[in-house]
Amino acid sequence: MLFHVRMTVKLPTDMPAEQAARLKADERELAQRLQREGTWRHLWRIAGLYANVSVFDVPDAQALHDTLMQLPLYPYMEIEVMALCRHPSSVHADDR
Amino acid sequence: MLFHVRMTVKLPTDMPAEQAARLKADERELAQRLQREGTWRHLWRIAGLYANVSVFDVPDAQALHDTLMQLPLYPYMEIEVMALCRHPSSVHADDR
Amino acid sequence: MLFHVRMTVKLPTDMPAEQAARLKADERELAQRLQREGTWRHLWRIAGLYANVSVFDVPDAQALHDTLMQLPLYPYMEIEVMALCRHPSSVHADDR
Amino acid sequence: MLFHVRMTVKLPTDMPAEQAARLKADERELAQRLQREGTWRHLWRIAGLYANVSVFDVPDAQALHDTLMQLPLYPYMEIEVMALCRHPSSVHADDR
Amino acid sequence: MLFHVRMTVKLPTDMPAEQAARLKADERELAQRLQREGTWRHLWRIAGLYANVSVFDVPDAQALHDTLMQLPLYPYMEIEVMALCRHPSSVHADDR
Amino acid sequence: MLFHVRMTVKLPTDMPAEQAARLKADERELAQRLQREGTWRHLWRIAGLYANVSVFDVPDAQALHDTLMQLPLYPYMEIEVMALCRHPSSVHADDR
Amino acid sequence: MLFHVRMTVKLPTDMPAEQAARLKADERELAQRLQREGTWRHLWRIAGLYANVSVFDVPDAQALHDTLMQLPLYPYMEIEVMALCRHPSSVHADDR
Amino acid sequence: MLFHVRMTVKLPTDMPAEQAARLKADERELAQRLQREGTWRHLWRIAGLYANVSVFDVPDAQALHDTLMQLPLYPYMEIEVMALCRHPSSVHADDR
Amino acid sequence: MLFHVRMTVKLPTDMPAEQAARLKADERELAQRLQREGTWRHLWRIAGLYANVSVFDVPDAQALHDTLMQLPLYPYMEIEVMALCRHPSSVHADDR
Amino acid sequence: MLFHVRMTVKLPTDMPAEQAARLKADERELAQRLQREGTWRHLWRIAGLYANVSVFDVPDAQALHDTLMQLPLYPYMEIEVMALCRHPSSVHADDR
Repeated sequence: MLFHVRMTVKLPTDMPAEQAARLKADERELAQRLQREGTWRHLWRIAGLYANVSVFDVPDAQALHDTLMQLPLYPYMEIEVMALCRHPSSVHADDR
Repeated sequence: MLFHVRMTVKLPTDMPAEQAARLKADERELAQRLQREGTWRHLWRIAGLYANVSVFDVPDAQALHDTLMQLPLYPYMEIEVMALCRHPSSVHADDR
Repeated sequence: MLFHVRMTVKLPTDMPAEQAARLKADERELAQRLQREGTWRHLWRIAGLYANVSVFDVPDAQALHDTLMQLPLYPYMEIEVMALCRHPSSVHADDR
Repeated sequence: MLFHVRMTVKLPTDMPAEQAARLKADERELAQRLQREGTWRHLWRIAGLYANVSVFDVPDAQALHDTLMQLPLYPYMEIEVMALCRHPSSVHADDR
Repeated sequence: MLFHVRMTVKLPTDMPAEQAARLKADERELAQRLQREGTWRHLWRIAGLYANVSVFDVPDAQALHDTLMQLPLYPYMEIEVMALCRHPSSVHADDR
Repeated sequence: MLFHVRMTVKLPTDMPAEQAARLKADERELAQRLQREGTWRHLWRIAGLYANVSVFDVPDAQALHDTLMQLPLYPYMEIEVMALCRHPSSVHADDR
Repeated sequence: MLFHVRMTVKLPTDMPAEQAARLKADERELAQRLQREGTWRHLWRIAGLYANVSVFDVPDAQALHDTLMQLPLYPYMEIEVMALCRHPSSVHADDR
Repeated sequence: MLFHVRMTVKLPTDMPAEQAARLKADERELAQRLQREGTWRHLWRIAGLYANVSVFDVPDAQALHDTLMQLPLYPYMEIEVMALCRHPSSVHADDR
Repeated sequence: MLFHVRMTVKLPTDMPAEQAARLKADERELAQRLQREGTWRHLWRIAGLYANVSVFDVPDAQALHDTLMQLPLYPYMEIEVMALCRHPSSVHADDR
Repeated sequence: MLFHVRMTVKLPTDMPAEQAARLKADERELAQRLQREGTWRHLWRIAGLYANVSVFDVPDAQALHDTLMQLPLYPYMEIEVMALCRHPSSVHADDR
């Protein structure tokens, strides 16, 4: 099942640079593993913002929740979730 | 270049059924042609809503605008546009 | 899978009484069938509003979408959807 | 009487891990007791968010207020309350 | 039980004057009866607006809903409802 | 003259318990005195929230302002003010 | 007593030109009379909008309400009201 | 040229009382000088709020900006600006 | 003086095509004349929307208002206005 | 390609003056270099606000993102981005 997730990251401006760097590195490593495994199907940067638009492919809402909860940057994110389904005019086999 | 577009369709509830059917059929035909040509790269239905989330791959903002303006349902849509770019953690070759 | 849906109904104030009565009767019949089949698991009126809060139990987002699209009052509704999952502190076997 | 409550938890990101763990454990214990006693009738996690949707069954608004005020995480919550009543199309004996 | 209700009336500007007058007269008659019976405990005009703030004293949310549904102007109203309870600093015997 | 005031209190979560207790006690004492004097005519808790709905009876807007400014919790409040007047359908002698 | 009022006028685009002209002429005549009488103390156009910012000097909220209700364009206006009082740093004798 | 400015002051609740008092005294002194010079033409308190509504009379937008930037409380203000012009129904010589 | 104006056009979907075409042609003619005269200094389409972002260079707010009021599409526009001034870091001679 | 960017700067009020001054000087230097190079095509101050409206001329959304990310004040900014394209009524050669 597909979920559309928008994540906006708000790091405290007084977070030590080292802590921020470690969080981002950990986030990146997990994000790349989830992409390779097929769970994090799309990941785009929104131009100009410290935010992304993502599409997740998971068995159900529980799996989506458990996946997002593991993200190292999760405590600093604002999250918006929308469940997706096949558009009747879609011709792309993987948009479902 | 990629653009993320959310389209919400609001047909007047008093539109004759035949007119609505014709508009939707024309919209579908154009949407499928644009998908096959690679312009309309993703098209998902937002579950429960008469709305979609789409990703367009176009040379620039002018091309995006000209594409959206041709949609038969455009006069009945609310549109939100965001320019996308490559996410530094992305591993998908086509998310750019 | 569970979805939380809020439906707010806005009938045009100039809709003929007979048409409104027929729509509501059809809506009611379908709502009751879906409740008996277990798809529409909860249905509450929000006090003071022509609106309801519902919980649907469906295989996936596609099934939710197809269910909502059949509702006779759908063209007159504003819909908000949230995917639900098990709360870690829940003790109710059916809240999942 | 039934109330629909949405709780969104915002723990300060600099709260010591031990304090957060204790608050959550206390919250969980009380939530489970209130569920077993029938006061907290439904409790769902909103997928992707540190938030829940709940239904409380209490004698009146005063009892709802007193119940929520006891929650250990209350000072860190944003709360939205809606009074519910029976939906005329409801067939579920316990949705009232 | 007390409920705080804000009602904002939006009559279509093309409603025939006679129909508007009849609706308002019927609304007034019912409002005054409900006030005399003790159900509609307070009724104030918000200065400058075609809107009021009211406090209803009803057995429960169902009674509030049934009361509001009878109002002749209900189809033209935007309604906001909040359940009230006793304030711990209140000294007024009837503010509960 | 009557004013409808909604006060939402947001105490910093790191305020020492003793300071919070003192502020609340002072607030309560002043609130009760103002109620007894007839200035603070109604005071209700909004169920589930650390917020109240109040009606003040004061000579004019200046008096309202001066009254609110004295409240010990004022620096921690979000305030919304609406001027009230007699509703043409009101039958309550004191709703003016 | 002073009230700050913002009025935004939304005439239906299909209102006959003659009806619009008559409404505006009547509005203008009343607005000028109220200004000369000292009730409508200030009247400014918001640049670029069919809207104004006004300050009324009236005995109380009831008088403000009665004044606004007489405006021929009132049914087509969105109104926002704020009660004003003397600013402690004000030196203008008439800003109160 | 006239500008309508709404200023809402949000002092941090942990600002030392002495610092707050100094800022306010400086603000007051400048506000009174600007009023006497004719630049700050109107200044009203919004009843119940730590906020004001002001009208400035300045040569142009640059002068408005430079004036507001000097205010000692500016770093703690939320500011809303609207350019004003003569209302066609205005009879007050100084409302322009 | 420079003003930033955002115009969003909402033509009624049932406006006869001929009337819409005439309005747009008239709008275009005036827009081009105002651009050539230097009043309408910049005019951009917002990609994907029937909306524009414009910069006007006018003597004052009155001139801006009079200019916008003449636009044939004005009755169908939502308008947002912001006064601009020179940015202290600007190096462009004409951004003022 | 042109992008319209609104930047609102929110420096923490407790940032040391020296740090703020250095950030602003660095920001200014980069802003002026980008203007001279043609990337930052327009830069206006919004009158009364610590905010600007800018137009960037960049090859694509990636270049816009990389440019904004380098700004020393970026961590303290709220950013809104809109892609622009040629307006069909534009006569200015450089508004594209």
